[in-house]
Amino acid sequence: MKTRIGILGYGNLGKGTEIAVNAANDMELAAVFTRRNPADVNILSENVPVININNANEWYDKIDVLILCGGSATDLPVQTPEFVKHFNVVDSFDTHARIPEHFSNVDKAAKESGKIGLISVGWDPGLFSLNRVYANAILPDGKDYTFWGKGVSQGHSDAIRRIKGVKNAKQYTIPITSALDSVRNGENPELTTRQKHIRECYVVLEDGADAARVENEIKTMPNYFADYDTTVYFISEEELLKKHSGMAHGGFVFRSGKTGVNKENNHIIEYSLKLDSNPEFTTSVLIAYARAVKRMSDEGKTGCFTVLDIPPAYLCEQNGDELRAKLL
Amino acid sequence: MKTRIGILGYGNLGKGTEIAVNAANDMELAAVFTRRNPADVNILSENVPVININNANEWYDKIDVLILCGGSATDLPVQTPEFVKHFNVVDSFDTHARIPEHFSNVDKAAKESGKIGLISVGWDPGLFSLNRVYANAILPDGKDYTFWGKGVSQGHSDAIRRIKGVKNAKQYTIPITSALDSVRNGENPELTTRQKHIRECYVVLEDGADAARVENEIKTMPNYFADYDTTVYFISEEELLKKHSGMAHGGFVFRSGKTGVNKENNHIIEYSLKLDSNPEFTTSVLIAYARAVKRMSDEGKTGCFTVLDIPPAYLCEQNGDELRAKLL
Repeated sequence: MKTRIGILGYGNLGKGTEIAVNAANDMELAAVFTRRNPADVNILSENVPVININNANEWYDKIDVLILCGGSATDLPVQTPEFVKHFNVVDSFDTHARIPEHFSNVDKAAKESGKIGLISVGWDPGLFSLNRVYANAILPDGKDYTFWGKGVSQGHSDAIRRIKGVKNAKQYTIPITSALDSVRNGENPELTTRQKHIRECYVVLEDGADAARVENEIKTMPNYFADYDTTVYFISEEELLKKHSGMAHGGFVFRSGKTGVNKENNHIIEYSLKLDSNPEFTTSVLIAYARAVKRMSDEGKTGCFTVLDIPPAYLCEQNGDELRAKLL
Repeated sequence: MKTRIGILGYGNLGKGTEIAVNAANDMELAAVFTRRNPADVNILSENVPVININNANEWYDKIDVLILCGGSATDLPVQTPEFVKHFNVVDSFDTHARIPEHFSNVDKAAKESGKIGLISVGWDPGLFSLNRVYANAILPDGKDYTFWGKGVSQGHSDAIRRIKGVKNAKQYTIPITSALDSVRNGENPELTTRQKHIRECYVVLEDGADAARVENEIKTMPNYFADYDTTVYFISEEELLKKHSGMAHGGFVFRSGKTGVNKENNHIIEYSLKLDSNPEFTTSVLIAYARAVKRMSDEGKTGCFTVLDIPPAYLCEQNGDELRAKLL
């Protein structure tokens, strides 16, 4: 019997989840839940119902794992503890600083309901976290480096759009090649914020806005831009939509560590992603972990988990014999 | 209380394990077991007994995890099922084709004794296997690529040394840069054996040996060299020892996979290692997994496991709260 997946929220992540479910032999899409009027939501799959979110709980016995595709700022802190009362859920909560609080809320609700809440799944947090943890365990005497990009940062794009006179904007985070090379060469550099990434901003102005003032406001914005070398390009809305609507992203995780009687040997572990579509890759991770959630739930486990708690084999359709014979 | 580690076999892997144990805050080296006369074995650590292997079983209650540092050809197929009768053990069994048989033997013995046998730990099998499994689960529609090197292949060096007229030899496996770049660029190439790696051989001849014949025998050797572009350099034994005694190694694992309604998006996952010391890095992996074995044993688990069965958090000294706050 196939694992029955539900999708809550049908934006980029919802669509990506739908594509990933349809690509998995052992899963089927049971329903999509939306805050919008279901009649207005056109999904890719035929014969799959679109249901208003207010009726989601009626589906508690028809869905094995519910994938929460909302945002981390306001949706998931409420939705994950709420929906884990009735469903096994997976979310991609990515506000690193608030993970302990989110974990605690979800764990309490999940233990009360006997369900599983798997949080912060994706690539960072997610696959990058796995790599940080494995590499730290193996090389306790070392340094971590994480680089992001090239890709659009939603948070930084939003910050630009909040500036008076800005009609639209996209911001690319770009790792600095010489910094990557220095880490790769085992130089164990101390890198400032400015030495790791540059920021490129493509900005559409409102009619009559003062370009010089906007550029200055961007470049001096604390936390977001002041600590970076930032370039601002003013372009038309047409060009922005045409050239800067892509969803490519990626990044790099390194650990450079030493072993030896006199710490004379250096080792470099590098993990990198180059993604044509950030949401489709992220949801491919969510769906692999949905498989693990189904298995853990069948085993009677309950509570909140992260990717750090899940045996890798649980992500796979193949059984242990097949994995040992072919992929080990 | 610290986890008490035993080492069985004191070659390069044994020494590396000793260094890794001493670098771990939560472990201590309890004893080293050897087939040699213990009086002839000088270990790095002070106040740690060296014991003949025949007396190892007397230590069953003084060791939490025994690290088996023998070879995969003849030592581990016998030692791992034998010593798991009395100890939790970790080995680095790396004959991929024989893993299912080894697993089965160790599993049977471990379940009878109530101990844990964790097999095939290291970087390939080991970390590379983890990356193949994660990447296959996430991108089911894709291609895997594994490259090794630059580093010495012990098996290929041995094969050269068995040729008549060869006194000594070292063989380097070297990945071909253009193949790496093609994979990295998302070209999803079909690569023949010859297109992935080249082989460089440094050979010391016996007095009066026929260099042309030796070179021909190397280059035409089936399985080992015939399918590769192979270069043979004849050098003095002095030069071999001086320039080719290093233990650097490394490699690359890629998965290139597609998502999208029409499979229009490509994603590349790359994992790579650049290691100054193959044995010291391998044993750093063994020791991280020894921590997991201790935890699983305390939980009452028993039987044979591989890295695919172990939650990443089990490798770490830190608890779940610390990992979620700092590394997730």
